[in-house]
Amino acid sequence: MKKSVGAKTILYPTPVLIVGTYDDAGKANGMAAAWGGICCSRPPCIYVSLRKATYSYGNIVARKAFTVSVPSQEHIAEADYFGMASGRNVDKFAETGLTPVRIELVDAPYVAEFPLVLECKLLHTLEIGLHTEFVGEVLDVKADERVLDDEGAPDIARIQPLIFAPGNRAYFGVGEFLGDAFSIGRRIGEPK
Amino acid sequence: MKKSVGAKTILYPTPVLIVGTYDDAGKANGMAAAWGGICCSRPPCIYVSLRKATYSYGNIVARKAFTVSVPSQEHIAEADYFGMASGRNVDKFAETGLTPVRIELVDAPYVAEFPLVLECKLLHTLEIGLHTEFVGEVLDVKADERVLDDEGAPDIARIQPLIFAPGNRAYFGVGEFLGDAFSIGRRIGEPK
Repeated sequence: MKKSVGAKTILYPTPVLIVGTYDDAGKANGMAAAWGGICCSRPPCIYVSLRKATYSYGNIVARKAFTVSVPSQEHIAEADYFGMASGRNVDKFAETGLTPVRIELVDAPYVAEFPLVLECKLLHTLEIGLHTEFVGEVLDVKADERVLDDEGAPDIARIQPLIFAPGNRAYFGVGEFLGDAFSIGRRIGEPK
Repeated sequence: MKKSVGAKTILYPTPVLIVGTYDDAGKANGMAAAWGGICCSRPPCIYVSLRKATYSYGNIVARKAFTVSVPSQEHIAEADYFGMASGRNVDKFAETGLTPVRIELVDAPYVAEFPLVLECKLLHTLEIGLHTEFVGEVLDVKADERVLDDEGAPDIARIQPLIFAPGNRAYFGVGEFLGDAFSIGRRIGEPK
């Protein structure tokens, strides 16, 4: 018997994504979003959901582009700060000492010090309620060489991304390898 | 200098969500989805993105409802199986020995053995490409009492959810607590 805890946004895990945009004056901004993820395989798409009140909202509407940089554990304080301060009042890159770099294919900056970045062209805008969902087509994924595995794929264990737990209002790390996907379930039955 | 790895769906972390639906005959089905997450705070909404070819796709279109059950590490094999087999050909609950239970507020089943479940009424359907995104309003969250913390919130450390790493095609656990959100960033600057 399960206990009701109410109509809340509690789901595990959620990510910590730094959304990179330029404002009207060309100032780079970064904003932490936990409401984000992959939403289509072909074309490859991710989304971030933002409140209209955020500075990044207007930037995405105007530039029709954004990046998502994935921070490592070592930058937990900077990532958290990106979720508290507003680009309307402060230059968050200057405050954190992190480096905004214009990405190659879209009109948006990324965080140079973070190991993984996705560059996105705005594809859909879905008004839901307090949050607006921006779906971006992933035009490229770029990663630091040091986080690539032997097959050239970005390795979660080397990236050490943050996990945000909405119910706990806390960050956690990634734990141990548990098993291969599309494999460990074969003990129950072959795909039919 | 970052290296391009191509336009791919690589982002960390992604979740392992078991989407619960009923088919035309009232048979319960569960399907693993990693393309899912929170997309609005008010009303509280989550989404799952499914291919039209999946059995669950038609079920959601017909019933306008679904649940999302979050499995623990102990059920990694069952969760993986839910992502390989199709409800069109097999009764996945019977195969895994897990128990489908009709949820309270919407026309969908959940997995009794999994510690956290969200019940969702279909609110938006967004055609993106290979995947269709279903946005569901969360009408309630239910959890096993054993995973609630002292304040009654579902605790990620007790739930032990799976993390799916698309680049690795592997599952990982949740690691150690790293810091409090909206707090640890204050060392950089107060919100302005």
